Amino acid sequence: MMFINSKDGNFEANFQELLGRGKMDIATVSNIVMNIINEIRTDKNKALKEHISKFDKWTPNSDEDLQISTESMAKAYENLDKKLKDALHLAYDRIKAYHQKQKPKSWFDDEANGTILGQKVTPVDSAGLYIPGGKAAYPSSLLMNVIPAQVAGVEEIIVCTPTPDNEPNELLLAACHLCGVTKVFKVGGASAIAAMAYGTENIPKVDVITGPGNIFVATAKKMVFGDVHIDMIAGPSEIGILADESANPNHMAIDLLSQAEHDEMASSILITPSQKLADEVKVEIENWLQKLPRQEIARKSIEERGAIIVTSDMDEAIELMNQIAPEHLEVATTSPFELLPFIKHAGAIFLGHNTPEAIGDYVAGPNHTLPTGGTAKFYSPLGVENFMKKSSIISFSSKAINEIGEECALIANTEGLTAHEQSVRVRLK
Amino acid sequence: MMFINSKDGNFEANFQELLGRGKMDIATVSNIVMNIINEIRTDKNKALKEHISKFDKWTPNSDEDLQISTESMAKAYENLDKKLKDALHLAYDRIKAYHQKQKPKSWFDDEANGTILGQKVTPVDSAGLYIPGGKAAYPSSLLMNVIPAQVAGVEEIIVCTPTPDNEPNELLLAACHLCGVTKVFKVGGASAIAAMAYGTENIPKVDVITGPGNIFVATAKKMVFGDVHIDMIAGPSEIGILADESANPNHMAIDLLSQAEHDEMASSILITPSQKLADEVKVEIENWLQKLPRQEIARKSIEERGAIIVTSDMDEAIELMNQIAPEHLEVATTSPFELLPFIKHAGAIFLGHNTPEAIGDYVAGPNHTLPTGGTAKFYSPLGVENFMKKSSIISFSSKAINEIGEECALIANTEGLTAHEQSVRVRLK
Repeated sequence: MMFINSKDGNFEANFQELLGRGKMDIATVSNIVMNIINEIRTDKNKALKEHISKFDKWTPNSDEDLQISTESMAKAYENLDKKLKDALHLAYDRIKAYHQKQKPKSWFDDEANGTILGQKVTPVDSAGLYIPGGKAAYPSSLLMNVIPAQVAGVEEIIVCTPTPDNEPNELLLAACHLCGVTKVFKVGGASAIAAMAYGTENIPKVDVITGPGNIFVATAKKMVFGDVHIDMIAGPSEIGILADESANPNHMAIDLLSQAEHDEMASSILITPSQKLADEVKVEIENWLQKLPRQEIARKSIEERGAIIVTSDMDEAIELMNQIAPEHLEVATTSPFELLPFIKHAGAIFLGHNTPEAIGDYVAGPNHTLPTGGTAKFYSPLGVENFMKKSSIISFSSKAINEIGEECALIANTEGLTAHEQSVRVRLK
Repeated sequence: MMFINSKDGNFEANFQELLGRGKMDIATVSNIVMNIINEIRTDKNKALKEHISKFDKWTPNSDEDLQISTESMAKAYENLDKKLKDALHLAYDRIKAYHQKQKPKSWFDDEANGTILGQKVTPVDSAGLYIPGGKAAYPSSLLMNVIPAQVAGVEEIIVCTPTPDNEPNELLLAACHLCGVTKVFKVGGASAIAAMAYGTENIPKVDVITGPGNIFVATAKKMVFGDVHIDMIAGPSEIGILADESANPNHMAIDLLSQAEHDEMASSILITPSQKLADEVKVEIENWLQKLPRQEIARKSIEERGAIIVTSDMDEAIELMNQIAPEHLEVATTSPFELLPFIKHAGAIFLGHNTPEAIGDYVAGPNHTLPTGGTAKFYSPLGVENFMKKSSIISFSSKAINEIGEECALIANTEGLTAHEQSVRVRLK
């Protein structure tokens, strides 16, 4: 773990290393991914079946074999423990309520001369959600991708998820039933992204692809971008914490480790003006590590990519955190809302001592699909808007076009576009 | 020009050809573009200067040579004809007023147990706007890219535009001064996109790159996507018109040609249930063509990529247009707003007989940077939102986390993430 002070002589070099965290070297896999995409575009399900045989170690016998039956999803849901079922319903309801509040509305404005200008907001026709399989098959990811698409009003929602050894994750199937998803395909990796982007015999071509994934999935999403829309290109998970002496070091330690346990590549960074807190958190991290079932992953992550930075004051801490632009940002201070105006870049901001990042992963309501690796400087959390798009609305009356048509024709003429000019002039009186 | 009826035997094949319009074969240029990007990343301004010597036929002597002076922009503005100056100011004011109305707001909602959930909307720190040079250097493009960035509140706005033979377009310089843009670089093509994505000695690295361009620019934008955000990947311009017998065939013809004059690759498509209108428009197109200075381009575009489709009724016309998802859509019917609920996909919708598409290119207010080639199915017009991003806001009270913490911990445990679980449990009473 990096344990540094902003006054250290080599601070800048260390800090640059943190800024470079989570960079994915897409170039290393782009040829492989390009070939996969081309194979799916050419041979569709035939290629999909070959990729499944190779990567997931089972062989689909027919196109129908690629799809999971709604019966098996219903059964998985019925088999859920009652308490877990209730917890997932609570999560579903809260996530839905939050996303309904963020749904954009069509609007217009009119002018006295008869002009109407506005924006019409429409859902995309279809969305494809990628949900990783195997050890990273999280039902919460399904909820977080399906619900915004449903709230947007997307008519066709499909899910692709790999099923190694043809053994679907029962929790994921149960979550599909709970969400009312019916079209789930046992297809993973770059092949799944290509199948959803271009369509196969029974997997429909979609307009938007969202969802997390490894470097192959991320690279495939980047490659199909333009032919479909995608949410973002995401890397390993990460947390930043801004804390003062009012923070509980035991809580800070487990919060940092809650990211570290995800992935050896995850980053966990505490920035505080309190040397005392920094020292105590360091000790608590070791105490917690020894109790964690995922100790091995968490330890590697925290040792290689964790950091505690002590600053001169909170202003400096915030300034550094804005440069980091973390996926998750906890603000564990006495008066966290007072700092909010100065926080510029973070995927999600968790304010106060009672708001651990994990509450946002499952039940708080906001989406847990968030920009990583500093891309919070320009990407937003996954949301309803990823599944909607806008059309400008323009309507002029005869009076309105006569009022500003001359100016329009003049600019068009200046740009040398006389058909543009004439299309306005023919309407002037 | 394709002149067809939806009842024709070969209609489907013809229509598929229209759906495939404007597909760019990025693969043909991707190696070239990748090399350009790598050269700029490695050698920065040294590589930029070499590319300028090669493509723009002049050789910058210093880093400062790459930048256009604010004095020359002010001078170009002063030299503007008074009427044109007024027209550009009218355009600026109307575009700004429209974009201010679409600016998203931060919001929050609270719950009686002490929960606060919301979204904070923040501008990106910096934006790079690409404006094509030479024959396609349009001051209107500058306004349409700069204004949404300014309304968003972006602190650093830079512009890159190629200046063949080191001769900047005076109109563009004047528009820069009018908009208050001060950092303008004489750099074009894929090199410019790479310079803005990764930075050079004097061109700052930005967070978002927007603006139109040829296939090299489009490919470069796709390649840097992820390291920066981009608006969209746009191809040749296009117009779709839905019209009934109330439409003026002379107006319809010049409206179609106003797209055709842009580019030989532009598409202009009229769909109408009226055979009479279709026949008349065909004649009017030829009449207009002979009067246009850009006849050669417009004729090639309309002959090779233009279409008039006659349908059984308006419902069928709308259904076909939704599949086309045109960049610009004119609705030239008696009661255009009655059709609006059925129009699903279009970049901008121009309603009624007094609303030619060209009015939206310059002075109406909405942005003229719009999704092309059917991507209106998932992309939105360029807008203020392209220069802003969101952070989720989550704040729980002790009471609030105690109310739903148990459910959260249960889901985390089920997913095997015990540090997540513990980070919640330590806060429960």
